[in-house]
Amino acid sequence: MKDIKIIAFDADDTLWINEPYFQETEHKFCALLEDFLPHHTVSQELFRTEMNNLSLYGYGVKGFMLCMIETISKVTDNKAKIELVNRTIELGKELLRKPIELIDGVEEVLKQLNGDYRLVMATKGDLLDQERKLINSGLEKHFHHIEIMSNKRTEDYQKLFKHLDCQPEHFLMVGNSIKSDVLPVLELGGFAIHVPYHTTWAHEQVTQKVDQPGFVQVNKITEILSYLG
Amino acid sequence: MKDIKIIAFDADDTLWINEPYFQETEHKFCALLEDFLPHHTVSQELFRTEMNNLSLYGYGVKGFMLCMIETISKVTDNKAKIELVNRTIELGKELLRKPIELIDGVEEVLKQLNGDYRLVMATKGDLLDQERKLINSGLEKHFHHIEIMSNKRTEDYQKLFKHLDCQPEHFLMVGNSIKSDVLPVLELGGFAIHVPYHTTWAHEQVTQKVDQPGFVQVNKITEILSYLG
Repeated sequence: MKDIKIIAFDADDTLWINEPYFQETEHKFCALLEDFLPHHTVSQELFRTEMNNLSLYGYGVKGFMLCMIETISKVTDNKAKIELVNRTIELGKELLRKPIELIDGVEEVLKQLNGDYRLVMATKGDLLDQERKLINSGLEKHFHHIEIMSNKRTEDYQKLFKHLDCQPEHFLMVGNSIKSDVLPVLELGGFAIHVPYHTTWAHEQVTQKVDQPGFVQVNKITEILSYLG
Repeated sequence: MKDIKIIAFDADDTLWINEPYFQETEHKFCALLEDFLPHHTVSQELFRTEMNNLSLYGYGVKGFMLCMIETISKVTDNKAKIELVNRTIELGKELLRKPIELIDGVEEVLKQLNGDYRLVMATKGDLLDQERKLINSGLEKHFHHIEIMSNKRTEDYQKLFKHLDCQPEHFLMVGNSIKSDVLPVLELGGFAIHVPYHTTWAHEQVTQKVDQPGFVQVNKITEILSYLG
């Protein structure tokens, strides 16, 4: 990894905690509907609704809120009272207002790498929401560039490289998702370090074993320092 | 305007039609609720809800959908059936799927300026939605850079200038909103051309008369060519 000039970090569940907050919200949402159907059935229906709407809504909390609301009618066969919709909107607003909790070691890693590398934050989600999280995180000062992406497929990284005026062999992506942070970057000839998080959204899960040059897996974000002399 | 190097275009109601589609959706939404309250009362309550949620949701269709849904409970005192929520979600999805209709002369203007200037698209709204509109518009090829902004205040333009590595005196903004496209850019020492659109969202309306150096008002986008040698 000696030719790396730019290091891009995923944000949600790489820099700060995210998925547990979504899961907590989903749990409360399913509890609202337990008079109608058991938790796991509501949860399955919600996931189905999210997948159906993903190409229209994209990633982020607002789309998640709209999918929860749509799910209410589906699982109650239109029998729910509108109060359930109000409470679901409140759950979504609570999620949007969650304080930022940094993952252990993140600040130390960014401080140490900043200066030797150009650091970029590259994340999916709602624009305003991700900007707010970045500002609340206090991490903004470490980043040369912030890229909020509507998706993280190969073509999205190609655009990012063009935008950063960067060759893939000088680019390292660090993130918790094999599907979004690792595979497309390796495919383009870049480097990727996977820092797994204890929980991953079903949509981001892959079973594929990665065994390619340019790939490293670590247990904690601080371990990436040992690969970056 | 002879020192201008970068021309940034607002998108909604500058490059393509937008506000009439929002108004059409709002009209249909108010019609859904006319058993409860007259159109203009629902419309006022919706606007109040949008303003209350703006700092949390930001701009764009998904936030608009959530605000319409929240308004249903408010104006019906929780007496509405959940079917109204379903129909509102459908209205929002329809809005997201609207075809792109370019404003007259846009393509000609971009074609003529591209090459002599670096062209940028600078717009507010939902990330995925604005990207989709750009792709469907067929205009992507004319732009050197796309900036989807969570807001268009002075500090947001400062970030854009830094990002584009551009001095304000080399920057021209073209758009239909005095508040978002003109005033903050003039304040920073840049140039701005206002191309009014026949209808403007209440939140973007200002009564302020602009009379500053660097400002021009035209009637049609094609007229900007006469200011750009």
